[in-house]
Amino acid sequence: MHHVVIIGGGFGGLHTALSLRSSPVKITLIDKRNFHLFQPLLYQVATGGLSPANIAAPLRAILKHQKNVTVWLGEAHGIEPKTNTLHLKDDSLTYDSLVVATGGENAYFGHPEWESVAPGLKTIEDATRIRKKILLAFEKAERLPVGKERTAYLTFVVIGGGPTGVELAGAIGEIAHHTLRHNFRNIDPSEAQIMLIEGTDRVLSTYPPELSERALQSLHRFGIQVLTNHMVTHIQPGHVQLQTDANDRIIMYSHTILWAAGVQSGTFGLALAQATQVQPDRAGRLPVEPDLSLPAHPNIFVIGDLAHFNHQLDAPLPGVAPVAIQQGKYIAKHIRIHLKGKSLPAFKYKDMGAMATVGRASAVAVIGKWKLWGFVGWLAWLFIHLMQLVEFQNRVLVFFQWSWNYLTRNRAARLITGGLLDPKKLKKT
Amino acid sequence: MHHVVIIGGGFGGLHTALSLRSSPVKITLIDKRNFHLFQPLLYQVATGGLSPANIAAPLRAILKHQKNVTVWLGEAHGIEPKTNTLHLKDDSLTYDSLVVATGGENAYFGHPEWESVAPGLKTIEDATRIRKKILLAFEKAERLPVGKERTAYLTFVVIGGGPTGVELAGAIGEIAHHTLRHNFRNIDPSEAQIMLIEGTDRVLSTYPPELSERALQSLHRFGIQVLTNHMVTHIQPGHVQLQTDANDRIIMYSHTILWAAGVQSGTFGLALAQATQVQPDRAGRLPVEPDLSLPAHPNIFVIGDLAHFNHQLDAPLPGVAPVAIQQGKYIAKHIRIHLKGKSLPAFKYKDMGAMATVGRASAVAVIGKWKLWGFVGWLAWLFIHLMQLVEFQNRVLVFFQWSWNYLTRNRAARLITGGLLDPKKLKKT
Repeated sequence: MHHVVIIGGGFGGLHTALSLRSSPVKITLIDKRNFHLFQPLLYQVATGGLSPANIAAPLRAILKHQKNVTVWLGEAHGIEPKTNTLHLKDDSLTYDSLVVATGGENAYFGHPEWESVAPGLKTIEDATRIRKKILLAFEKAERLPVGKERTAYLTFVVIGGGPTGVELAGAIGEIAHHTLRHNFRNIDPSEAQIMLIEGTDRVLSTYPPELSERALQSLHRFGIQVLTNHMVTHIQPGHVQLQTDANDRIIMYSHTILWAAGVQSGTFGLALAQATQVQPDRAGRLPVEPDLSLPAHPNIFVIGDLAHFNHQLDAPLPGVAPVAIQQGKYIAKHIRIHLKGKSLPAFKYKDMGAMATVGRASAVAVIGKWKLWGFVGWLAWLFIHLMQLVEFQNRVLVFFQWSWNYLTRNRAARLITGGLLDPKKLKKT
Repeated sequence: MHHVVIIGGGFGGLHTALSLRSSPVKITLIDKRNFHLFQPLLYQVATGGLSPANIAAPLRAILKHQKNVTVWLGEAHGIEPKTNTLHLKDDSLTYDSLVVATGGENAYFGHPEWESVAPGLKTIEDATRIRKKILLAFEKAERLPVGKERTAYLTFVVIGGGPTGVELAGAIGEIAHHTLRHNFRNIDPSEAQIMLIEGTDRVLSTYPPELSERALQSLHRFGIQVLTNHMVTHIQPGHVQLQTDANDRIIMYSHTILWAAGVQSGTFGLALAQATQVQPDRAGRLPVEPDLSLPAHPNIFVIGDLAHFNHQLDAPLPGVAPVAIQQGKYIAKHIRIHLKGKSLPAFKYKDMGAMATVGRASAVAVIGKWKLWGFVGWLAWLFIHLMQLVEFQNRVLVFFQWSWNYLTRNRAARLITGGLLDPKKLKKT
């Protein structure tokens, strides 16, 4: 029976598998994690609004009744296209069709050393690590005398003005101004400075300028300082250095520097590029044919964040969930139809719009030809994200927690976890 | 103003602080974690039924409106009773009254090397680590051929037949027989062997024999093998060695060995014993006076798991939440009354009973003179635990998830987190 191997249980890989539900194929879905992660809400885990399990669904649970799928916990390592062989770290298997949906990881523009100082937000572990960083900063400030060091702990720098950066900064603003109110005795959390750094001339630069403007207004209302046209030139523990296009240099002192500035394809993406002699783009994404297959490799498909698709477009498709989902469904149909000896027209992305929250009860959204913002935009954002959560149980849990957080301005999941407190970290310096 | 320093934000410490709400004292509550943990439900986090945040409440959130409390994130290190000085790892402060409620940690009866193989269940990190161990075992078995190794991955050994051990074993039974049903293609999770090892002649040995018998029947019904009168003599990766009182030796091959056999006081408890020249008992607990103060140190109080209280009792009080809570409230009253120059009769424990779940929809409970078991016992257990959760939000979240888990037999929080998958760990051996 035709064997479809899917690497990655994210939006692209999962929807490929689900859409092959009733097809005469044997599917092996490989992921190094045992769950599907709803990444668009990861920033809410990083800011204590939701628990990891609320935005993750075990792959085996989702697929347990789909008998033609076998889920493998494993990591793709290398590939031999000639023999249709995929190598895992500890095993190997052959495929008839291969779907590569391994997504991306944080990109530091040639400065990998920045990652240890300025964590990005890609995995559950990233989220709990950032949560710990944010909460510990307030704890440390509470025990420091007024001064430079305390100010550095009460300064939060978010690098990257895209949706993730805007949502992170907005949520930190909410924490400082609402959640932690009355929680401390020596500091006033609302004194915290929150900076959002963007290299281009506006936040949410992929959105209509009007919405960028609305988002900016909301950010200001939440006390967040936005620096556009500022590039990061240097990051070290305790400070970040910026440069304006007028070549002015700015140094900011902060113990909480967060990275939301870029994504690149992971190691397997590069291995695949080598094995197939496909030239990746600057972000490491692989250019794909109109049918999402790799040039000269009609049975290897690349979808989601790893794919560079720009046929009849001015710019390649963005790395967002709707693109990955539509591509996954397209591949499923493609495989079904090819099994019947027929062929399918090129993939076409149906752009349903985009949306991002900007702090408490505020969001900007483009839906079809509508533009929404503020509270209305937020309600739209709320509804659409709730509906997209994979499991009903999570929809209810998330809905309840959002309502509760909204009413009480509380965030129950503000736990400092992951190793007991390191006393050195708390030492007054 | 009279300065009360409380070490530990568990049941004892938290209730001391809360009960001093309207007293003319200044309170400093020190904990190395930023949350109060509802330990009785920790096993549900370890088995994917609940998320960490559901059973943890940020101390600052609980106490934010109690202006006479300052919460410090820090770790007690040493003490100088003569000068009423408490040393933290990075700081020190003086007290008028000191309340030590630092609780206990896992005890390995002189075999600390066992901990790396057989983790215990005391912290959130322990719980997610055990959750990972249990879930990875099934994942590994799924990819192994039939044989000794696969069987070892499908064998779970829980050491200790007290409430924690019984609840852990019961929950693993539920996972194997219900939660993971249809989740795998190569293994049948219900083939998993679950062993519960107890050194005495019955499980729940502190409960009435009748309830031990009921619990045993439930455990058998869930396919759990119970070995009483078996002592652990040796633990190594992959196997555990047992000894019967008839000196028979048994070796069990398992990659998931869990420890629920003993608690001892932590490092600060020992430092305190030295500084006050109090002789700890075998478990490291400190004998306290009838008023819970340390001998010859009337302003240092020890409560909860760290205290050894046996005045007019045949056995010292057990290390359970109700004891710690009642002791915390007593201390608060004690301090209040002493400030008025009066004194208080000795502490008396009002035993409200005890309860433990035994797998799906089954529990045993002693409430006053009543004995409950099975479904009725479970409902009582459910109600009482829900009511005791600190925050309303958590009550709702836990109630919903329990109802949902009961109806669907699903457990949404079965995430393998904490570091990406280590491929070596998955390697076929």
